Amino acid sequence: MQDTSILNGIDTGALQQVVEGVTRDPSQGRVTFGIRTSWLGGARTSAQALPVSLGNQTIDRNFNIESDEPLEILGTNKAANPQELLLTALNACITVGFVANAAARGIQIDNLEVVSNGSLDMRGFLGLDPNINPGYDAVSVEVRIRSKADAKAIEELFAHVIKTSPNFNNFARPIAVEASLQFQRA
Amino acid sequence: MQDTSILNGIDTGALQQVVEGVTRDPSQGRVTFGIRTSWLGGARTSAQALPVSLGNQTIDRNFNIESDEPLEILGTNKAANPQELLLTALNACITVGFVANAAARGIQIDNLEVVSNGSLDMRGFLGLDPNINPGYDAVSVEVRIRSKADAKAIEELFAHVIKTSPNFNNFARPIAVEASLQFQRA
Repeated sequence: MQDTSILNGIDTGALQQVVEGVTRDPSQGRVTFGIRTSWLGGARTSAQALPVSLGNQTIDRNFNIESDEPLEILGTNKAANPQELLLTALNACITVGFVANAAARGIQIDNLEVVSNGSLDMRGFLGLDPNINPGYDAVSVEVRIRSKADAKAIEELFAHVIKTSPNFNNFARPIAVEASLQFQRA
Repeated sequence: MQDTSILNGIDTGALQQVVEGVTRDPSQGRVTFGIRTSWLGGARTSAQALPVSLGNQTIDRNFNIESDEPLEILGTNKAANPQELLLTALNACITVGFVANAAARGIQIDNLEVVSNGSLDMRGFLGLDPNINPGYDAVSVEVRIRSKADAKAIEELFAHVIKTSPNFNNFARPIAVEASLQFQRA
């Protein structure tokens, strides 16, 4: 019998089906994301989400995400910048992890906010010192949650989410980035 | 005398001023970004960019970035998902690095596209196997560029950008993520 109850806006029956499907056939849990970004001039870009491959399904995507830099960082301030998009990706992933895992545990979340901050040294980006990391050495992320559940249940949920969040791990672990160049002489 | 020429949409005089300012006083190159994300129910979130601290300036931000999951991943498909935002952040950062460093070198870029892809195993996120990385082991990123510059100049530029891109390094290096929980019993 299928459980179709909705908790935290998550269909717990559908979640259970995903878990069972991937447990039965791990290839159904292989998911590939892609983004094609076009340069719009200056620091402006427009990104198109490419079709997602999920197990044996292909899911068309129809989303566009713009980016720019503030005036002070040589941009025209038309959109969030790459650093803000990166932190947004972290926060959103932690939120989904929290809400879905809470639903699976029967925990109702009343309110959830995630705040992240990171500080970097632009001497890295500007090529002024090869010993300086151009990115973040550290990032802080605070999960603010309101729920009727008890503190212990929420702490256990939090620990589980941190361990299993894709983007938390993408921040915390090194990723092998294979970069290639395709040059067309104009 | 200030050079005010624009190349690739980048004000090379302003770029030179940034480089000189940060060289003179490295604290001017310390920049802090922040994002506050509110949960909208289910897998939907809305992120607000917080004021940027850049040296001794505070720059107000007025950008909102939404996120959701596809229907197949328990969402309502209203916006790009956290994985797509992460790759968007990578592509945008590489683009800015390419275009700004090209301008600094006097190289005109005619066209630039960045395509990235990453594949992950949802058994990590679903908590089905603690030995599986919930994030990407690897990501590929291809920079497609058209320019009148010669191949050697573009290859050198590419190598420099990869080395100095904040988000390339954020992917490639581990970040110390300090996660904290603020729980309010409802």
